[in-house]
Amino acid sequence: MGKIFVIGMGPGGLKDMSPRARKAIEVADLVVGYSAYLDLLQEHFLGKQFIKSGMTREVERCKLVLEKALEGHNVALVSSGDSGIYGMAGIMLEVVNKSGSNIDVEVIPGITAASAAAAVLGAPIMHDFAVISLSDLMTPWELISKRIEYAAQGDFVICLYNPKSKNRSGYINIARDIVMKYRDANTPVGIVKNVGRTGQTSVIATLENMLNNEIDMFTVVLIGNSQTYIEKGKMITPRGYRL
Amino acid sequence: MGKIFVIGMGPGGLKDMSPRARKAIEVADLVVGYSAYLDLLQEHFLGKQFIKSGMTREVERCKLVLEKALEGHNVALVSSGDSGIYGMAGIMLEVVNKSGSNIDVEVIPGITAASAAAAVLGAPIMHDFAVISLSDLMTPWELISKRIEYAAQGDFVICLYNPKSKNRSGYINIARDIVMKYRDANTPVGIVKNVGRTGQTSVIATLENMLNNEIDMFTVVLIGNSQTYIEKGKMITPRGYRL
Repeated sequence: MGKIFVIGMGPGGLKDMSPRARKAIEVADLVVGYSAYLDLLQEHFLGKQFIKSGMTREVERCKLVLEKALEGHNVALVSSGDSGIYGMAGIMLEVVNKSGSNIDVEVIPGITAASAAAAVLGAPIMHDFAVISLSDLMTPWELISKRIEYAAQGDFVICLYNPKSKNRSGYINIARDIVMKYRDANTPVGIVKNVGRTGQTSVIATLENMLNNEIDMFTVVLIGNSQTYIEKGKMITPRGYRL
Repeated sequence: MGKIFVIGMGPGGLKDMSPRARKAIEVADLVVGYSAYLDLLQEHFLGKQFIKSGMTREVERCKLVLEKALEGHNVALVSSGDSGIYGMAGIMLEVVNKSGSNIDVEVIPGITAASAAAAVLGAPIMHDFAVISLSDLMTPWELISKRIEYAAQGDFVICLYNPKSKNRSGYINIARDIVMKYRDANTPVGIVKNVGRTGQTSVIATLENMLNNEIDMFTVVLIGNSQTYIEKGKMITPRGYRL
C-alpha cells in the first residue's frame, strides 16, 4: 500500500512551493492534478508519471488517486495555492473515508492566493479578514450572499475567490452592492489576476469603480475594511501601531 | 540605497519557507526579526548579520530596518507564517511611507498558521472562513467580539489567532460562548499548538469541551461551521461534493 500526499503548491509554481511539498513530490512516483498546474512542475520532476485532468471531476480524480495508492504507488495530488483552502484535501479525505481504507493521507499546506495577492498589493490583510468563494457550483447563492452581508457588517477585510465565471458573471456585482451598503464608496479594492503566474496583473480600485476592471475566475478580489487606505500605490490596512 | 524584503517564513522554519523567500534572505546581508524565528534560520544562512529582537517594539524594528537599508544594506525583515497576515508587512510600509523615502519594499508571502494548522487537523477550512485575532493590544475588544458574533452568524469556519496570553486569558472563553449562541455544542474545534515547530500538538475537541485544553499564545483555534464533522480522527468541512 502506498501513501497519498495532498499538496498545496502555492500560487506560482516552484518559486512558491515549500521544500516539504517538493520533497513529497520527490517521494511520489505518480503526480495527479489539473493540467495547467502540472505543466508548471513537470520539467522539474523527471522520472515521474504525471496524470493531468480537467478543472472539474474532482471526485473521479480522488478515486483514481486512491486506486493507484492501493496498488502500491506513492501518489502526489497537487492543488494550486493551499490544498486545504477550496483545494483537494477535503474531498480526498472524504473519498478515502468512504472507501473504508486506512491508507495514510498527508496534507501539505501551501501559500494561498489571498496571501500572494496581498503581497502584490502591499499589506491589505493585516487585520481580521473573511475568505468567501463566489462559486455557486456546490453552495447556494443565498448562503454566499448571507456571508458577504455578515462579513461586510463585521468590517472584515473580504477576500473573494472564484469571483466570476461564464455561468455566474453577475455575482461579483451583487457582492459589491452588498458591501456598499456598509462601506464607503471610496474603500480600496485590490484586484489581482494570475497571481504569481505568467500574465500577473494587479489594480487598486475602489468599491465605487471596481467593476470597470476585468474580473475573471483567475482573479482574487480583496476589499479593504473601514481603515484601509492607499498610499504610494500600496493598499494598506493598518493594524493600529502608533508611528 | 539598499532594498527591504518583508518575508513570511511560514510556520515551521526552513521546511515551510518558499524558494522565493529563501532567495531574498540570500540576497540580504542583514536579517532582522524576532529571536525565536531567527534561531530557526541562522545556521542555514552563513555570512549574514542577524539582529534579533523581542516580541514587541515592532515600530522600532521597522525604523531600524529602514535606517540600515538607507545606509545601503539589503535587509530581510522576517515574520513567522505570512508577513502579510498580522505580520510585519503593514507596519514596514507605514514606516517607509511616513519617512518620505522611496526605498523599494518587496513583500514575500508565506504559509499562514491557519493553513498549517488545518493540514494537521485534516481539512477544516475547505469552505468560507474568517480569521480573527483575539489580541486587544491594538484593537478594542468590542470590535473583536462584534466580529466573532458576525462570523458565527454567517456560519464561517472561524480561525482564532493569538487566542490567549497572560493579560487576556478570558477572551477565548467569551469567544467560545458567543459562537455557542449560533452553533451546536458538538461543533468540532481544532486546537493546534506550535504548528510546524518542535513541540507541535493538536487536539480535536468540541465547542462544549474545548476549554478543557491548554490554549496559549502559540496556539491556533479552528472552529468548524455547521457542516464540519470528525471522522477517523480528521476534522473535515465538506465543500459539498457528492461521493
